[in-house]
Amino acid sequence: MIIGVIGGASVSREIREQAFEVGKRIAEKGAILVCGGLGGVMEAACQGARSAGGVTVGIVPGTDTGTANPHVAVPVATGMGIARNAIIVRTADVLIAVDGSYGTLSEIAMALNLGKTVVQLGSWRLPEAGEVDPKLYVTAESPADAVEKAAAMAQRRG
Amino acid sequence: MIIGVIGGASVSREIREQAFEVGKRIAEKGAILVCGGLGGVMEAACQGARSAGGVTVGIVPGTDTGTANPHVAVPVATGMGIARNAIIVRTADVLIAVDGSYGTLSEIAMALNLGKTVVQLGSWRLPEAGEVDPKLYVTAESPADAVEKAAAMAQRRG
Amino acid sequence: MIIGVIGGASVSREIREQAFEVGKRIAEKGAILVCGGLGGVMEAACQGARSAGGVTVGIVPGTDTGTANPHVAVPVATGMGIARNAIIVRTADVLIAVDGSYGTLSEIAMALNLGKTVVQLGSWRLPEAGEVDPKLYVTAESPADAVEKAAAMAQRRG
Amino acid sequence: MIIGVIGGASVSREIREQAFEVGKRIAEKGAILVCGGLGGVMEAACQGARSAGGVTVGIVPGTDTGTANPHVAVPVATGMGIARNAIIVRTADVLIAVDGSYGTLSEIAMALNLGKTVVQLGSWRLPEAGEVDPKLYVTAESPADAVEKAAAMAQRRG
Repeated sequence: MIIGVIGGASVSREIREQAFEVGKRIAEKGAILVCGGLGGVMEAACQGARSAGGVTVGIVPGTDTGTANPHVAVPVATGMGIARNAIIVRTADVLIAVDGSYGTLSEIAMALNLGKTVVQLGSWRLPEAGEVDPKLYVTAESPADAVEKAAAMAQRRG
Repeated sequence: MIIGVIGGASVSREIREQAFEVGKRIAEKGAILVCGGLGGVMEAACQGARSAGGVTVGIVPGTDTGTANPHVAVPVATGMGIARNAIIVRTADVLIAVDGSYGTLSEIAMALNLGKTVVQLGSWRLPEAGEVDPKLYVTAESPADAVEKAAAMAQRRG
Repeated sequence: MIIGVIGGASVSREIREQAFEVGKRIAEKGAILVCGGLGGVMEAACQGARSAGGVTVGIVPGTDTGTANPHVAVPVATGMGIARNAIIVRTADVLIAVDGSYGTLSEIAMALNLGKTVVQLGSWRLPEAGEVDPKLYVTAESPADAVEKAAAMAQRRG
Repeated sequence: MIIGVIGGASVSREIREQAFEVGKRIAEKGAILVCGGLGGVMEAACQGARSAGGVTVGIVPGTDTGTANPHVAVPVATGMGIARNAIIVRTADVLIAVDGSYGTLSEIAMALNLGKTVVQLGSWRLPEAGEVDPKLYVTAESPADAVEKAAAMAQRRG
């Protein structure tokens, strides 16, 4: 099971704490965490996953694996900029969006386009902006709730 | 000046007519039209542009230029699936979104992420879903209005 | 018919003259010329094609269409670095390699991998380095010969 | 340290045994093994690395992580076809080419283009085909020799 964590690169302490908790619980489920490998939500989630002995994959936009945050165990350097968002989405069985801005929105949209579930925690309120399949875009109340819902969806797909 | 047209691959006749008009007016401005090269909004916009003697570029997701719609003058085959959306966004100076679903949303989001203006005509009501820069995400009332606004933005960038 | 021209970004005057002639003859065949959009062989070939009224497409590695050489009529910005070589190869029906170093070699190899013919003019002597299908990797004696052979192959595929 | 292993997807038993040995020794060095995730050399190398408790990353061309061979611990699905070769090259600090055909050649060429060392074991005899930097394209006599040379180069870069 591979769970993607997407969200902003510079976020508040509260959001970081939520992301850490999401990462920790992903690792406790025995799932691999895949993300964009940079800071903010990505870094906090990786740190949380590593604190529980999990595997973290960071798919960075740049040309150098050294740009991954220090909690990424397996860095992948794409050199493709924002197009790497598609690889994160392809690789994940299901995604959890924590907060996030335009980049996160692009990942949510690509996931929905590919029929993958996104569990959102304080991220874009998409159903207010257009027609969205409520089975694919699910709201969570807490980090624990987000990981439970994501894991349940991933198992249904598997 | 290169104007991107993004929107759904299967849309109503009314939307097709709007897309045709958008494409026609882009060509009349002397701008190159870039799109995803497939059907629906993309095809109608290309047809409109060609009717006015314009240049149409279709950046298709598949591996074969033969999958481009017949109104694409210059097909580009990426073989990269949905990741090709990033190339459309990179290539356009400004984008016009006509209707559209998740794929279009991913292009809008990438454009905003890169600081490029998107003029929307009956597309996602993004400001209702989160924080959006009103200078980057602009609403048009008609195809003519959309192309005027897009051309004005492109010239400001150029 | 779309003919790709690949080769080095900084080359001698003699090579530039060959590339110019290749581009000119591609345009005279009524084919679209696609290339990597930068300098050297790419620029000279585009200039040749434009001198004969042809269409030139430059698929640049960077994020900005402004990095294309001035003889590119249709720039495509990928932001994907060297991975854009795959898009040039996918888009071309057949390729002509003029001189060239490692980047050109990667394009030749991808073309052969996809079963596309490469006509080489003073480029890599691949059959001396391993097993190469002689129907896919063809040697030309002159720019005119290269374009004749490429056009013949493209029509056989069409 | 991340070592890339590149080579053919369908190869002889002898080549598979060499690739297994290469993978095993990479893991014994404590390095991560990155490859294209499919069969042949890629699968044998992953199996070797896993037999020694190593981490294996498979960057597959398709859209589904399920296409990775069973010895890949961390699959990454790009959906980008042959363009994914660039990601393997970007991610590796140094590459070992075992046998291999056109796809492998494209990876060798991209690595050399990016200034990364390729250690070759029964792969393309490139210096017979054109000008190649002998510091970047190194011949090994055995799997053990290949991994020693690759590890020495990676440490020099680090």
